Amino acid sequence: FADSWTGLREFTIKVCQMGKSDPRKIVFAAKMGLALMLISLLIFLKEPFESVSRYSVWAILTVVVVFEFSIGATLSKGFNRGLGTLSAGGLALSMATLSTLARDWEEVVIICSIFFIGFCATYLKLYPALKPYEYGFRVFLLTYCFIMVSGYRTRDFIHTAVTRFLLIALGAGVGVGINTCIYPIWAGEDLHNLVVKNFMNVAASLEGCVNRYLSCIEYERVPSKILTYQASDDPLYSGYRSAVESTSQEEALLGFAIWEPPHGRYKMLRYPWKSYIKVSGALRHCAFMVMALHGCILSEIQAPAERRQVFRGELQRVGNEGAKVLRELGSKIKVMEKLGPVDILEQVHEAAEELQKMVNRKSHLLINSASGNNENRRNNLGEPEDLLMSEEFENAIPELKSLSETVLLPDSNSCLSTMLTAPSESKLQKHISWPAPLSFDADTEESNTYESASALSLATFASLLIEFVARLQNVVDTFEELCEKANFKDHKPVEQMPDVEEA
Amino acid sequence: FADSWTGLREFTIKVCQMGKSDPRKIVFAAKMGLALMLISLLIFLKEPFESVSRYSVWAILTVVVVFEFSIGATLSKGFNRGLGTLSAGGLALSMATLSTLARDWEEVVIICSIFFIGFCATYLKLYPALKPYEYGFRVFLLTYCFIMVSGYRTRDFIHTAVTRFLLIALGAGVGVGINTCIYPIWAGEDLHNLVVKNFMNVAASLEGCVNRYLSCIEYERVPSKILTYQASDDPLYSGYRSAVESTSQEEALLGFAIWEPPHGRYKMLRYPWKSYIKVSGALRHCAFMVMALHGCILSEIQAPAERRQVFRGELQRVGNEGAKVLRELGSKIKVMEKLGPVDILEQVHEAAEELQKMVNRKSHLLINSASGNNENRRNNLGEPEDLLMSEEFENAIPELKSLSETVLLPDSNSCLSTMLTAPSESKLQKHISWPAPLSFDADTEESNTYESASALSLATFASLLIEFVARLQNVVDTFEELCEKANFKDHKPVEQMPDVEEA
Repeated sequence: FADSWTGLREFTIKVCQMGKSDPRKIVFAAKMGLALMLISLLIFLKEPFESVSRYSVWAILTVVVVFEFSIGATLSKGFNRGLGTLSAGGLALSMATLSTLARDWEEVVIICSIFFIGFCATYLKLYPALKPYEYGFRVFLLTYCFIMVSGYRTRDFIHTAVTRFLLIALGAGVGVGINTCIYPIWAGEDLHNLVVKNFMNVAASLEGCVNRYLSCIEYERVPSKILTYQASDDPLYSGYRSAVESTSQEEALLGFAIWEPPHGRYKMLRYPWKSYIKVSGALRHCAFMVMALHGCILSEIQAPAERRQVFRGELQRVGNEGAKVLRELGSKIKVMEKLGPVDILEQVHEAAEELQKMVNRKSHLLINSASGNNENRRNNLGEPEDLLMSEEFENAIPELKSLSETVLLPDSNSCLSTMLTAPSESKLQKHISWPAPLSFDADTEESNTYESASALSLATFASLLIEFVARLQNVVDTFEELCEKANFKDHKPVEQMPDVEEA
Repeated sequence: FADSWTGLREFTIKVCQMGKSDPRKIVFAAKMGLALMLISLLIFLKEPFESVSRYSVWAILTVVVVFEFSIGATLSKGFNRGLGTLSAGGLALSMATLSTLARDWEEVVIICSIFFIGFCATYLKLYPALKPYEYGFRVFLLTYCFIMVSGYRTRDFIHTAVTRFLLIALGAGVGVGINTCIYPIWAGEDLHNLVVKNFMNVAASLEGCVNRYLSCIEYERVPSKILTYQASDDPLYSGYRSAVESTSQEEALLGFAIWEPPHGRYKMLRYPWKSYIKVSGALRHCAFMVMALHGCILSEIQAPAERRQVFRGELQRVGNEGAKVLRELGSKIKVMEKLGPVDILEQVHEAAEELQKMVNRKSHLLINSASGNNENRRNNLGEPEDLLMSEEFENAIPELKSLSETVLLPDSNSCLSTMLTAPSESKLQKHISWPAPLSFDADTEESNTYESASALSLATFASLLIEFVARLQNVVDTFEELCEKANFKDHKPVEQMPDVEEA
């Protein structure tokens, strides 16, 4: 009993917090209560509106059904309900006239027509292109059956149809009116905010990935939620995951937003909501690269920390500049402003080039040191960041000659296979427990193979990061398309731009 | 007019094709017609069941609303409807008793209670954890208002509530009975098939990626649908995309499947549907690597064809073995059988190791040839696959010395930047139009930087492929968990296994 009491208390607290974090929900619930209250006043009507009072249930039903969170959803449901009711009413009236002509067979005609209409409406409802009108088909079916059935009983088809339609129109009017006039909640606004949030999330994930990679924080044990792509509170993961996962939410919001009339900042008929989806899709294409970068951190095979440090400055700069571009684009979308005359990608491209040049210069670090070039390495030794590695390289030299001898030895029980068979179990203390490469036996090859894999992982990270930068161009292109179509205001050159990193 | 006629004809043809490709849809529509027909028979009831006939609309409404495609969805909606009606009925009856006690203030009490209940139910409905019961809240609200309103009019609260409840129960009974007894359509079966289909799709995508990469078929122009992550008919892309995109569909099916009683092959109370989702999630984690592999094909920076050929055998083998494992797991899930005693991953691990060793041996090919090791290269020259490249290397030697001199020249206008700024525009004819590396000017560095990037792209491809193989273990683990929980039958050792590659 005490348990359920604490459970209830916690639930109440959480429910109250929901209201605090999004007060629109409280407003919406109050609006719903108000609409129901207004429509219930119908029952107090006396003669000559007695029949309105009797059929008031239809108005209540309509309010309950049509009242949706966003204006777009309300309008779309209201439209579906209206269309379904009208078309079903017309069809039912003509069928009823036909059925009375059938005299003795009237009942059979009614029953058969219900089967036939039920079959057709249900079948068409399943057609993918008609899915947005699913609710309309339901209303159609319900109205048709209702008019046929109650008309047969009362012999007053037209009265049934007209009363029902008027009350539904009244319910829809009250519902839509209250929902639209008092503190409207727009699906378009939500869509806009969602796209902006995706930009910020991906930017945070990117920065997090690069920082974590450079500070060599590995997962003690990769959370199984990440391995099975479930929601998890890992900040790196949830950042890009939310952007990747938001497709269905975006589709739903788009479906509602196109129903909404021009409002607030979206003063334009046929506002290009689709372009927002497109920008978000292009961002998602980038987010997949962040996902792949995160994969490098999740991977069992890790590049040695010392080598990562060599590229620290460049990787860090690309990560920061990339995140800065995403944040700037996000805040530009937020305030609906065009880009300034300065090329937004200039810095990040420069950073990517620097990284690429660094990779080029130090490419011997990206493959197994054993097959590296002695001479080349000595050339580079003069640069300060290489000094810390010289010792490591001297140790690696005994392997150098062994490569060509051992490479052809068949060895199915190598270290790589050990790693492959237990990636999620427990992390091997690789860099410590690795067998010292001193003898020319199979171990050497194993360690060689592993070392080569681990160094290549750094190359993979760098090249994924560069690919990420390349994909940014596409985001900028779709953003500019959005700017044009949605008539974003021009960039204000005089005013000091707010620092986007602090936003 | 002719246009709309052809449009209608095409639409009819497509709708008919839908029925042919999935006959369940025709059956479902017929079931719906049948249920409506049966419930409409109520209106022909004469005394003493006149009131049943009068309120038959509630039964019709219930059938229309409760009749869903899958059994799970029908049961869940029926449950929601029942629970909502019952609890609202109880609450309304007690509130009605209270309101009559208020005498003169009765109307005020009724109206206020409607506002209050409307507010609470709508607010709670928005709480994320209560989302599956959204429909229940709607029914609750509707029933409460209806009983209060019509009870006030007729002064017969109990009769209204009881009749309404009985007719709803009748409608739900007919709906659920017909839907379950005649050709039932199970959400669980759909979920099962969806997971199997995902395996096959990812396998096809993986094979396609590797083959396309090796045959060096580049995109003339990357379809903008891929760049903005929209559905496209590119077979490589749609394969993994469908697996990645199926999360929301899986969640929906899971929500219905848990409502379904044991049936057919799923003879178990509390069947572990969640484990199917988990296997699918683990597969998705692999699919992200296939996505990254596809990214290597989409990328502007491409490894030279000759170098890819060096690794052809190994890459191909890993791709084929990986796809084979996925297909085998998929067909094992399909027939609900455990894995045999042979380690399913043995072959693919061996292939991955071979690839890793190959990478290790030929790592000089994965970085800019200019920083490669002369001596090392000559060592490898004896192997036949290197011969075709010797000429290329001789050409590259002029760059060799230039690297250390030119590498520090600042150059913001390099080729990489050209590529970065126009990745989706038009493909440069890179390998042909590349400036010949003869002079020691900035061009040399550019071409150097590009060459290094393009060679690293091959390393990235290989290392992503190896990471894909590593992630397979996780799929096998979740599959084995599913086997245990869902009591899959043992592998049949005597019978000849059907060749999964032909499946």
